Amino acid sequence: MKAEFKTIALVGKFNSPGNSTSLLRLADYLRQRGHQVMITPHTADVCQIRDFQVVTLNDIGPMVDLAIVMGGDGTLLNIARTLVDHRVPLIGVNQGRLGFLADVSIDTMFSTLEEMLSGQYVAEERIMLEASVERHEDVLIASYAFNDVVVSKSSTGRLIEFEVYIDNQFVYSQRADGLVVASPTGSTAYALSSGGPILHPTLEAVVMVPICPHTLSARPIAVNSRSEIEINLIHADDGRVHFDGQRHADLRIGDRVVIRRAHNTVRLLHPEGHNYYDTLRQKLHWGEKL
Amino acid sequence: MKAEFKTIALVGKFNSPGNSTSLLRLADYLRQRGHQVMITPHTADVCQIRDFQVVTLNDIGPMVDLAIVMGGDGTLLNIARTLVDHRVPLIGVNQGRLGFLADVSIDTMFSTLEEMLSGQYVAEERIMLEASVERHEDVLIASYAFNDVVVSKSSTGRLIEFEVYIDNQFVYSQRADGLVVASPTGSTAYALSSGGPILHPTLEAVVMVPICPHTLSARPIAVNSRSEIEINLIHADDGRVHFDGQRHADLRIGDRVVIRRAHNTVRLLHPEGHNYYDTLRQKLHWGEKL
Amino acid sequence: MKAEFKTIALVGKFNSPGNSTSLLRLADYLRQRGHQVMITPHTADVCQIRDFQVVTLNDIGPMVDLAIVMGGDGTLLNIARTLVDHRVPLIGVNQGRLGFLADVSIDTMFSTLEEMLSGQYVAEERIMLEASVERHEDVLIASYAFNDVVVSKSSTGRLIEFEVYIDNQFVYSQRADGLVVASPTGSTAYALSSGGPILHPTLEAVVMVPICPHTLSARPIAVNSRSEIEINLIHADDGRVHFDGQRHADLRIGDRVVIRRAHNTVRLLHPEGHNYYDTLRQKLHWGEKL
Amino acid sequence: MKAEFKTIALVGKFNSPGNSTSLLRLADYLRQRGHQVMITPHTADVCQIRDFQVVTLNDIGPMVDLAIVMGGDGTLLNIARTLVDHRVPLIGVNQGRLGFLADVSIDTMFSTLEEMLSGQYVAEERIMLEASVERHEDVLIASYAFNDVVVSKSSTGRLIEFEVYIDNQFVYSQRADGLVVASPTGSTAYALSSGGPILHPTLEAVVMVPICPHTLSARPIAVNSRSEIEINLIHADDGRVHFDGQRHADLRIGDRVVIRRAHNTVRLLHPEGHNYYDTLRQKLHWGEKL
Repeated sequence: MKAEFKTIALVGKFNSPGNSTSLLRLADYLRQRGHQVMITPHTADVCQIRDFQVVTLNDIGPMVDLAIVMGGDGTLLNIARTLVDHRVPLIGVNQGRLGFLADVSIDTMFSTLEEMLSGQYVAEERIMLEASVERHEDVLIASYAFNDVVVSKSSTGRLIEFEVYIDNQFVYSQRADGLVVASPTGSTAYALSSGGPILHPTLEAVVMVPICPHTLSARPIAVNSRSEIEINLIHADDGRVHFDGQRHADLRIGDRVVIRRAHNTVRLLHPEGHNYYDTLRQKLHWGEKL
Repeated sequence: MKAEFKTIALVGKFNSPGNSTSLLRLADYLRQRGHQVMITPHTADVCQIRDFQVVTLNDIGPMVDLAIVMGGDGTLLNIARTLVDHRVPLIGVNQGRLGFLADVSIDTMFSTLEEMLSGQYVAEERIMLEASVERHEDVLIASYAFNDVVVSKSSTGRLIEFEVYIDNQFVYSQRADGLVVASPTGSTAYALSSGGPILHPTLEAVVMVPICPHTLSARPIAVNSRSEIEINLIHADDGRVHFDGQRHADLRIGDRVVIRRAHNTVRLLHPEGHNYYDTLRQKLHWGEKL
Repeated sequence: MKAEFKTIALVGKFNSPGNSTSLLRLADYLRQRGHQVMITPHTADVCQIRDFQVVTLNDIGPMVDLAIVMGGDGTLLNIARTLVDHRVPLIGVNQGRLGFLADVSIDTMFSTLEEMLSGQYVAEERIMLEASVERHEDVLIASYAFNDVVVSKSSTGRLIEFEVYIDNQFVYSQRADGLVVASPTGSTAYALSSGGPILHPTLEAVVMVPICPHTLSARPIAVNSRSEIEINLIHADDGRVHFDGQRHADLRIGDRVVIRRAHNTVRLLHPEGHNYYDTLRQKLHWGEKL
Repeated sequence: MKAEFKTIALVGKFNSPGNSTSLLRLADYLRQRGHQVMITPHTADVCQIRDFQVVTLNDIGPMVDLAIVMGGDGTLLNIARTLVDHRVPLIGVNQGRLGFLADVSIDTMFSTLEEMLSGQYVAEERIMLEASVERHEDVLIASYAFNDVVVSKSSTGRLIEFEVYIDNQFVYSQRADGLVVASPTGSTAYALSSGGPILHPTLEAVVMVPICPHTLSARPIAVNSRSEIEINLIHADDGRVHFDGQRHADLRIGDRVVIRRAHNTVRLLHPEGHNYYDTLRQKLHWGEKL
């Protein structure tokens, strides 16, 4: 055992008892390998795992050297937001379908993890976003977002109107279904469906993609991740802000959503030989070598 | 006066007292011209018009030979759905900003209407859609739609999953924010913002445009307006159906939205010299002659 | 044998000796079935077929009741343009990869053709385009196009400028790499790569898709196939017009490319059970039933 | 006079005698201000300017502290490629129409330049690309590109096939009309017409945008400007490579186009108060403040 991953958090997918056997076998494997294993209450509960130390997700950050997340990209997004402040490295084990983030296959997880825990891995730092909703002088809500912050209409189906400022410079006003502000990690998620470009994970950039914009000359724009983006809601019957599509808050006219790069980055560990372009090509069905 | 427009309905924009003076002057003008003028209760109310016959929108259809709508395209959509069964021709007077449908400018309305009421107009028949929401064996709601029928997610921000059948043939399944089914008239509205093509009003076609589809190879497809389109909601936290963005209903998993062409068409009257491409070019800022 | 296909033309892919064995077996099969078989000189030559009647493609039209084309969609496009004036029905046999047009698989061609030649087929009429290039008062070139007529820049890489008129009404001017004018058949070919919509084959429509337009609000527009489209080349270092990507001609400034629907349609025969949406879904990797 | 711009090169638009009066007045103005003024032979010739020192563009780099370019963005691209090795700062004077690069208006150039030459300017460093075409072991051609390197089909209208490698990792193969590799500067030029995103000039990124790709799931991808991009031409009837759309070379099957970031950057000087987003909004007709 390499010393670097003495204590490991093991986190399962929310509300998914399906993989409890795999989780348990993984916990046993890690213990046998000499690691101290901690699991979250929800994982313990769903998987009926009893004889491992249970620590809440909010408390586990300072206590572990690594988190292994079993689930899909969605689960990993959630854990990444919670653990980013403690800079816990993350390994994502997918359940059969390759993820952009969860790229260790459950089918080969023991051999892959054996190598990774022995130090044979590729580490990658990814940008995390942080956003706050400001009303008058108050901050209503603040949240991290690993993929994206989305300001959108809610249930009425009517478009919203907003102004965008970057570093206090007016950029544009827009009437649209919404606006996606995505990190490189999020550029292959909702932003891509909305017509945005892919940003390589090493880019110090954030991309703004309008959703169904009324102005036909609207285009996605990638800006420096050091910039501060402010979205000012000018008109809406019912606006909303979404963080990774997992946390939400209602917006009122006049609310400002301010998006910056978070101080800390997310440290992802990939199996050796990991290749971003292979994942892209496989997920997006791009052409193989001729 | 030509005999064809003996009785004329005059309808103002919903909740918009701003144009009451113009409406009143228009009503007077029509009366002086020898037409019988009927107004809707809402228009009478908002504009404080007292000495004209007031008939509800639902009853006015069989009583009039023409409806003049003062407002924007949105107002005209609403009136068109209500009057289509009575095949009342429509003239749209816009309030300053050229509409795709409301193309008589309020600034020149008296001279333009003088010509049109004397028979100098261009008549155009436009396709109307009708849609019903079916749950098990019941029809929950049925509605006309002049622009579009949109099946979409509602407030959660999570995508919906649906299958599409055309004339009972399976077309595709899709995970997306939604699907726009638009008439040629609606092809320049929300469908266009969603990435759809423009369909010339004379086309016997309907276009299906996915909204932010998860599958990157999804594309808009225009099908024959004689076809029946069925959208089958497979998965959704909260789905919705919208008719012209003006009427809405909630959807549950298993609900089927069935869209057909309505039996009747909408008869739009345009000023002579009306040119669809001029309107397109002006609204979409396309290039002028070189 | 049904009487309707007494004489059959058999045409192979240009310059493709690879399928000579299949062609020969097919010819023998047809003869044994009692059909009179005619082949084109090129097919005879490439496939070294000796004991069948050889008639040039230009002469074969009035002599046959059916043409079976072995190749891909490209081969069928070419034959369709040549035979459209004689309204010869077409069956396309693909060589392993499903085509939009050539939808009889070579692997099962004998059983499929047995059924089709016995009258079990689905017939479909497809629009053919015809285009002419006019310089001053002269017609420089005229050609059919089954997929599309494309006006584009040539080798310099500089964009061209053109005006578009429909039924003598000015539509727009454009600076772009070019413009695709596609039939429903062509809407799944180059027009699709250029960002155009799919048009169902039953639509009486033609779609204009700008290629890399300078104006960001440019959008594809589908117009009535009864309309006449005129493209007027205003500026170009070196313009070109392409018919189905198979015939070409150079254009000069001032040249007009005039596109109409051809008088005759192309009659395609499909195996029974043919379903356009199945082909679309398979070729475009759209989602299967959930 | 600030010491920093002792000697100034003055360059006019190629083959454009139209602005000779302005150029002459500008030269006089600079001389009166105490600067040493050098002009290129072509500018001298076209504008009939006689009493200033004439130095070829190739030689002028080491001799000047600043170049003022009168023309449009195209002229500035050309000068930037030539002078980048000498790191000569550039000011672009446009002739009436705002450019992305040439943002000093000819109408106010004297007052604007007075301020800029006194030190009131905003300096900006922009990435330059360099590309080489390799055949077997030879480098056939090497060129800078400020906007973009484009590999494309040439005159036949048939698509080309190529593979892309980034840092020797296989990315994808593609059948398309071509591929645009653009710097942030070029992201608002041809790449934008091809469907690419806008990259803010401060991004250390390069964007690859396929032109009319055959694969419908192809998407633009922005990669790190430190990466080396290799495009390997696999199939083409006639391929071409374009540098800024101003220099060209023919390609053969097997040729490799290798694109890197150039060692030097281009130093652009803007008037004080210059705002990138204002230029974007004005050029792309984006929405103004509400």
